[in-house]
Amino acid sequence: MNAPSDRPPLHPDLAEVLASRFGSRFSTSAAVRLHHGKDESTYPPMPPDAVVFAESTEEVAAAVALCHRFRTPVIAFGTGTSLEGHLLAVQGGVCIDLSAMNSVVAVRTEDLDATIQCGVTRKALNAALNGTGLFFPIDPGADASLGGMAATRASGTNAVRYGTMRENVLGMTVVLPDGRILKTGGRARKSAAGYDLTRLMVGSEGTLGIITELTVRLYPVPEAISSAVCAFPSLAAAVRTVIQTIQLGIPVARIELLDALAITAINRHSRTSLREAPTLFFEFHGSPSGVKEQAQTVQDIVTEQEGRDFEWATRPEDRSRLWQARHDAYYAGLGLKPGCRALTTDVCVPISRLADCVAETFTDLDAAAADLQGPLVGHVGDGNFHIMLLTDPEKPDDLARAKDFAARLARRAIRMDGTCTGEHGIGIGKQPYMSLEHGDVAIDLMRAIKHAIDPENILNPGKILPQQ
Amino acid sequence: MNAPSDRPPLHPDLAEVLASRFGSRFSTSAAVRLHHGKDESTYPPMPPDAVVFAESTEEVAAAVALCHRFRTPVIAFGTGTSLEGHLLAVQGGVCIDLSAMNSVVAVRTEDLDATIQCGVTRKALNAALNGTGLFFPIDPGADASLGGMAATRASGTNAVRYGTMRENVLGMTVVLPDGRILKTGGRARKSAAGYDLTRLMVGSEGTLGIITELTVRLYPVPEAISSAVCAFPSLAAAVRTVIQTIQLGIPVARIELLDALAITAINRHSRTSLREAPTLFFEFHGSPSGVKEQAQTVQDIVTEQEGRDFEWATRPEDRSRLWQARHDAYYAGLGLKPGCRALTTDVCVPISRLADCVAETFTDLDAAAADLQGPLVGHVGDGNFHIMLLTDPEKPDDLARAKDFAARLARRAIRMDGTCTGEHGIGIGKQPYMSLEHGDVAIDLMRAIKHAIDPENILNPGKILPQQ
Repeated sequence: MNAPSDRPPLHPDLAEVLASRFGSRFSTSAAVRLHHGKDESTYPPMPPDAVVFAESTEEVAAAVALCHRFRTPVIAFGTGTSLEGHLLAVQGGVCIDLSAMNSVVAVRTEDLDATIQCGVTRKALNAALNGTGLFFPIDPGADASLGGMAATRASGTNAVRYGTMRENVLGMTVVLPDGRILKTGGRARKSAAGYDLTRLMVGSEGTLGIITELTVRLYPVPEAISSAVCAFPSLAAAVRTVIQTIQLGIPVARIELLDALAITAINRHSRTSLREAPTLFFEFHGSPSGVKEQAQTVQDIVTEQEGRDFEWATRPEDRSRLWQARHDAYYAGLGLKPGCRALTTDVCVPISRLADCVAETFTDLDAAAADLQGPLVGHVGDGNFHIMLLTDPEKPDDLARAKDFAARLARRAIRMDGTCTGEHGIGIGKQPYMSLEHGDVAIDLMRAIKHAIDPENILNPGKILPQQ
Repeated sequence: MNAPSDRPPLHPDLAEVLASRFGSRFSTSAAVRLHHGKDESTYPPMPPDAVVFAESTEEVAAAVALCHRFRTPVIAFGTGTSLEGHLLAVQGGVCIDLSAMNSVVAVRTEDLDATIQCGVTRKALNAALNGTGLFFPIDPGADASLGGMAATRASGTNAVRYGTMRENVLGMTVVLPDGRILKTGGRARKSAAGYDLTRLMVGSEGTLGIITELTVRLYPVPEAISSAVCAFPSLAAAVRTVIQTIQLGIPVARIELLDALAITAINRHSRTSLREAPTLFFEFHGSPSGVKEQAQTVQDIVTEQEGRDFEWATRPEDRSRLWQARHDAYYAGLGLKPGCRALTTDVCVPISRLADCVAETFTDLDAAAADLQGPLVGHVGDGNFHIMLLTDPEKPDDLARAKDFAARLARRAIRMDGTCTGEHGIGIGKQPYMSLEHGDVAIDLMRAIKHAIDPENILNPGKILPQQ
């Protein structure tokens, strides 16, 4: 990675032509650049040299084509909520802010799909769907943009039932590194027509193209929803409950694990009074009787696994309070250690290895960094869990030890047939594990694809693929 | 496409080294070559120059590396049931028969996944799963190999509930054009770690790599299954029923449309006595009461759409008979015109356009080829339908008219935001529609990817990408 001082400044001719094309929507101000040079990771900011605020696919294409002419890096920016340094301008260049591209282009209720511009956030999309009887299920912690979520292959609490961005993007408009406009996929529910360019772009983190428009799948709002929360004597008992629930084919919509420390944090932050023990949060979607039946079956499993305090929340306000508490777990965790910064891990393993992976991880945490608190929250139906390591910015050693711990966790997950990242992406933070996870042949192939599509390495350089 | 006589014969040194490596599992006999040079399409056979019967990934890699050294085309062969000429040796070369790679490597009931060699067929996999409480849902008409199904991005009647091969392959072992062995994906349910090589290989029809091993998702065998069949006054009424069913979020496992002619064919072939009218076949999976409730809701919709003769089949033997009749629709269709060959179309459109697409298609058929019978069967929950055009091999004009009709249908589907192929793939048959469906930028990108991975154009040359 080049230090910012090692690289040439923005070419004055490029600055001039961008300024002339975009007027006040082109900025080189320090404040604007700084805002676009950081995300929610623990990396220090690395601002781009300039920021363009684009309002259409054609404008993105024009900006990219100009940058291409000057061999200048281009970084797409949605809401800035990435967690692995995805949008840091490690080689400088121009950031294209896409947040103004926030139109819902079409909602097609008969086809259960919607076309939106990339800057529409998940909450904005669901607000626009209000009254249609449909919703978009994917919910990463942040209110991220759909374009950013596709670029990161994001998911969240509903993925166990509804899939991730991989399964829910039908087609996209993408600006290629030379400024050409690509259309991928379409509106058919399935197609066997050639290489799957949609899935290639999903998860490519802005390194192969800039997603400017997406057609996504929608789902009927369930007739009935119920939620429940239940404490367990051990994390292992909670995980066994999850495995049995999935094996029985219960179409649970959400099944989230929190450890005792995460519950402590939530109790303090959200003024709840949950038992401070390993806990599962459940949500069931379906018909009224279907939901009741699913919940009854799960309750039987819970009893067998010695779960306690099984509590129902069928009233919408109780449900909202419960899930709001879950969604606030990140802020609740930060509250455990005022002034701290969180380094959040993101491994995902086959569910049969989940209990082992969690147990080894806590043993490691106790041995190596017991003073670093690390509440656990997990999308356990998928085998994905996060540990939030709370580091004191005044103690540089904290961050170093947290990173070492996270590195060991990533390697442990890969050893257990899992992945170093279930939903946050690679950015710069996870590059060290790419070869270990995928093998050198796969990395070579990814490089060959990147080179074929972006031979000048203009789009978000220095991300995903480990430095050679 | 080169005529076979235009191209050089197999290099004698390559033949010698393959013969020495594979012994009796290397063949240049005319009968073996002919068997490997045709599929279930209407294309005349185009045999490869030689066939290798591989028994392991390492053997496939060795054979491919040798062919690579001699710049000789390589075509993977599973069960030979492709429908668009996928495996015709249009440029000669060596066919690698993978049918002996038929081991189930591992079934992991806790993780709901299995690893199998590429030659395992879907029925063989389900037989191996017998007693585990799990099943693999994807069911194209033929008992195809899992490797071939992944290469073609196949689906079938269950896709509306369980997805296609795109959603159900977690990871693969793939031999690259130079003989290197690639591992893609893994066993984690989701991952955000880099470019999605698994999805790139799924649907690549053997042009980017040869899939030798797959890890696939499995599902719990539903506690209860029920099936129903119902006749409608019109295709449009049947389609409205489907749209309402999907919009209500009823998790129907199968919803298949057959037109009156297809029912006539089935009645004759399977000795059923179904009303000869547009008909939906339903299947519901879930708990006993859940299945009952789903079915009741659908029955209400059916009544509203003036469906008649709603018939239940809850006993396993009745259900099997019903679905066997549906699965035999292809042979039943052939029976309408003894000695005929079928050209089967495969468009898929957004469901809101399905009724229009079907209506325009039948108007076209009546006008242009009324004497060509064309029963319709469709996976209508996905908007995918097939028309089987029955052509007389003695009348060359039949096939020409059928092809013209199929071409118009493909263009009509694309005009309606759909695809020329929902599940059969491109092969050589659908190449003329690739640019129309995807646009020139997408085709350029697909070519760039093909060139980056297979610069010598060794793997299944002449497929997917239109000839330049």
